[in-house]
Amino acid sequence: VSTSLRGAFHDAHVTGDQSAVLPTDSQKNTVYAFAKEHGVGAIEDFALLLARHFVTDVPAASAARVAIDEYGWDRVSVDGRPHDHTFVRRGQEVRTAVATVEGDTAHVVSGLRDLVLLKSTGSEFAGFLVDGYTTLAPTSDRVMATALTARWRYATSDRPPHTPERDASPANTAAADASAADTSRAAWDEAHAEIRAVLVSRFATLHSRALQQTLWEMGSAALEARRDVAEIRLSAPNRHHFVVDLTPFGLDNPGEVFHAADRPYG
Amino acid sequence: VSTSLRGAFHDAHVTGDQSAVLPTDSQKNTVYAFAKEHGVGAIEDFALLLARHFVTDVPAASAARVAIDEYGWDRVSVDGRPHDHTFVRRGQEVRTAVATVEGDTAHVVSGLRDLVLLKSTGSEFAGFLVDGYTTLAPTSDRVMATALTARWRYATSDRPPHTPERDASPANTAAADASAADTSRAAWDEAHAEIRAVLVSRFATLHSRALQQTLWEMGSAALEARRDVAEIRLSAPNRHHFVVDLTPFGLDNPGEVFHAADRPYG
Amino acid sequence: VSTSLRGAFHDAHVTGDQSAVLPTDSQKNTVYAFAKEHGVGAIEDFALLLARHFVTDVPAASAARVAIDEYGWDRVSVDGRPHDHTFVRRGQEVRTAVATVEGDTAHVVSGLRDLVLLKSTGSEFAGFLVDGYTTLAPTSDRVMATALTARWRYATSDRPPHTPERDASPANTAAADASAADTSRAAWDEAHAEIRAVLVSRFATLHSRALQQTLWEMGSAALEARRDVAEIRLSAPNRHHFVVDLTPFGLDNPGEVFHAADRPYG
Amino acid sequence: VSTSLRGAFHDAHVTGDQSAVLPTDSQKNTVYAFAKEHGVGAIEDFALLLARHFVTDVPAASAARVAIDEYGWDRVSVDGRPHDHTFVRRGQEVRTAVATVEGDTAHVVSGLRDLVLLKSTGSEFAGFLVDGYTTLAPTSDRVMATALTARWRYATSDRPPHTPERDASPANTAAADASAADTSRAAWDEAHAEIRAVLVSRFATLHSRALQQTLWEMGSAALEARRDVAEIRLSAPNRHHFVVDLTPFGLDNPGEVFHAADRPYG
Repeated sequence: VSTSLRGAFHDAHVTGDQSAVLPTDSQKNTVYAFAKEHGVGAIEDFALLLARHFVTDVPAASAARVAIDEYGWDRVSVDGRPHDHTFVRRGQEVRTAVATVEGDTAHVVSGLRDLVLLKSTGSEFAGFLVDGYTTLAPTSDRVMATALTARWRYATSDRPPHTPERDASPANTAAADASAADTSRAAWDEAHAEIRAVLVSRFATLHSRALQQTLWEMGSAALEARRDVAEIRLSAPNRHHFVVDLTPFGLDNPGEVFHAADRPYG
Repeated sequence: VSTSLRGAFHDAHVTGDQSAVLPTDSQKNTVYAFAKEHGVGAIEDFALLLARHFVTDVPAASAARVAIDEYGWDRVSVDGRPHDHTFVRRGQEVRTAVATVEGDTAHVVSGLRDLVLLKSTGSEFAGFLVDGYTTLAPTSDRVMATALTARWRYATSDRPPHTPERDASPANTAAADASAADTSRAAWDEAHAEIRAVLVSRFATLHSRALQQTLWEMGSAALEARRDVAEIRLSAPNRHHFVVDLTPFGLDNPGEVFHAADRPYG
Repeated sequence: VSTSLRGAFHDAHVTGDQSAVLPTDSQKNTVYAFAKEHGVGAIEDFALLLARHFVTDVPAASAARVAIDEYGWDRVSVDGRPHDHTFVRRGQEVRTAVATVEGDTAHVVSGLRDLVLLKSTGSEFAGFLVDGYTTLAPTSDRVMATALTARWRYATSDRPPHTPERDASPANTAAADASAADTSRAAWDEAHAEIRAVLVSRFATLHSRALQQTLWEMGSAALEARRDVAEIRLSAPNRHHFVVDLTPFGLDNPGEVFHAADRPYG
Repeated sequence: VSTSLRGAFHDAHVTGDQSAVLPTDSQKNTVYAFAKEHGVGAIEDFALLLARHFVTDVPAASAARVAIDEYGWDRVSVDGRPHDHTFVRRGQEVRTAVATVEGDTAHVVSGLRDLVLLKSTGSEFAGFLVDGYTTLAPTSDRVMATALTARWRYATSDRPPHTPERDASPANTAAADASAADTSRAAWDEAHAEIRAVLVSRFATLHSRALQQTLWEMGSAALEARRDVAEIRLSAPNRHHFVVDLTPFGLDNPGEVFHAADRPYG
């Protein structure tokens, strides 16, 4: 969890007067205490809860931004049955959420990062500008790989997408609260899963003329699939796979053996 | 792939005479060329193939050690069907193999690393030595987490475990070769999967009195499950999960909210 | 060196048409070729040279941004004399420059990063806001440490600070060019050294009431020292040094033994 | 500081009985408490002190190994005068020491790591073995760079090199103790500085026929310079600097522009 506050903190910088500043140590404590008091649930809801708290709790804060990374765990199977208390880290992909609360308004940006995708064919790069320093050969068939970061902002402001407004009826007991939290989490989870699936599917099925075009199509597909997504940003550094030249050894290499560069560029 | 050679390379060090030394650049080229010429198959078989080559190819080399890391990929699903050319990195766990060839003998060490496991209960740490610098409280219920590295040596020398010796009949054609490679790979894969399952299962089901005891039991279980495993080494740095003290905020914390330290020790 | 172009690259994203796109591979080649053709000199000048080239060379590019990191090396001393061809890396501090060229205009941002500074006293943190989640004790004497990143923009646009405009006389030969490059480099170097010295000096001499105030004063001092600096940004994550509680062992610890946390926050 | 104990810890592994085990948390506390009680002084002396303590304090421990990394800081200059409380991290080079105590015997291994050295000429690599996979061209002039790790064991057991045995006279007061600690530190520091200088000097002045030969000569020079060094180990991965081929752009490149590979091998 990362927290930042914005507001009238001028004196802390200019004169060193800290009276308006809530120490980062207190912000850290708040995260732990809220995890116990309220539970975490969907990271989107927990980020909203924390951001609202800081805007309320800190008089000088006009806005708060809370970012959360969620690391996935899978339950371990023992003798074909799920074990009751043992888990394995799911992989390197991380689910992200950022809630920003400014006065009475709020918005949520969900996302993911380090989703490593690879197409072993169905990707070309040709017809590009050639200048005096160009030695790259055009290719009609290459490996395309990337570590995807995606972040999308929901138009639904601070309520989970596709969920009705909360029932204002008087029966809003603790059980109803817990149930509302579950419903909310299910809505965030379902939206996240759907957008992730659309991104991966478009990456897979599009014949790519370049990574830029692939990203454009992936983002467009997400916006079309979910009307409650207002905007989406994608970042996808090329993880180049270079065909190794095996001709010095009397061997053809028709797209079979690659050098996977470990420093992304492009 | 990492390669090392051992042998009569004295002059390269003492006089700078390189005539016995195969450059690392050539070793790298060999890996690429062999991937094309022979295919990779099981990393154990590919490591053996390369190690044998270097011992044969380099007159001064009496032994070669080849270590390979395998990064897993899963086929992507689109509309419920596996996609024909798109893949996602499986996670952070890495499968490893080391083949050592010395003259006519060979042995294989298979393994894994970065398998992150966590037990949310079923782990204690108590009854330890207390000296004048001990402040740690004993606990009968804690979270135990680690990033496991395991390496086991097969007693079967260089043939895959549980496989018959190769058929020496004259029908050993290319098709038979490919079939033999597939059979061999299946044997290595099956052994790896079984040992991994035993390690994870024992980690899950044992009530842990300490990480050392857990590792001992995991290793013992692997040795019992597979008679073709001659020895096993386990390394598992504690990834401490400290219970956060919430009493300053008037809250109990009966094993619910933890600080996951990001620097392993112990 | 990192290069980015901005301009009419719409088609590359929307239709996949690459005809306006100079491949990143060609940009990389350009950097190597320019290093040979023109020499590097000051990284500010080399960044400007590259940025101007890309804006000119790529018809669709309306702007180019070139960022360069410079790693320092010191000449090795042997028997008290500087050695003619052996060098040692200076440290972890990196000198940075970013040149942005947009049409006919240009500006340069110089800077540094990973300059690790520590004050063993002369730093307090007290009088801060206390809420229900605050447990941090105020302190009037603490260790303050950080890894400083600083970036400052020169008002002088693309000429080195404090240097006269180039002489337009006809004697502008190759020797004059080389001399101009040396003069230019000296000007950039002198400005960088002066600003670095002012930042470090202010960090040292200011009694700090908080890191924010220290940064404000450091930046202000830089702006006062050099009228050709238009703006400055500083980033300085706290590298906390926590006083270790030694009372369980019957020992005082009046600011002598610290736990240096390896994960910066705040 | 890293600590490890060896001894009769069988039960902790086999039955989970921890009664012989000093928790790593207590070992950590000990390091902090000893820093306050005894001061650190030379890392070699502090490592010996801790190792002796653990062998004495833990009944089951027959041996202890304590490794320490020392990060250097330089005092900051303000207006040409050294500042009284502000420091800057010296660089990436780390000074290391390992003390091993086994019963009554002890030995010390001092060293350094991450010392990045580069020769811009005076290095060749030629006359090597050529096999069917060799494409590397021999070179009589290349850049040689490495990040050096060196570790040397002193023959003097646990006393600082070149120092007389401690005076056993009755005047061994606290002042005498402090003075002895200073004398000891000076001896360790002087030995370290001399060996480092010899290593760097030999790296600089030797015409290198290969990195192996350079390391051999560096180690030999250290052993000759200090008779109290019993053995030395050097590790120096090649940080390749590849000459960039500029002929596609009509340019020669006689050892002027290099691609500095960021992944060491060889």
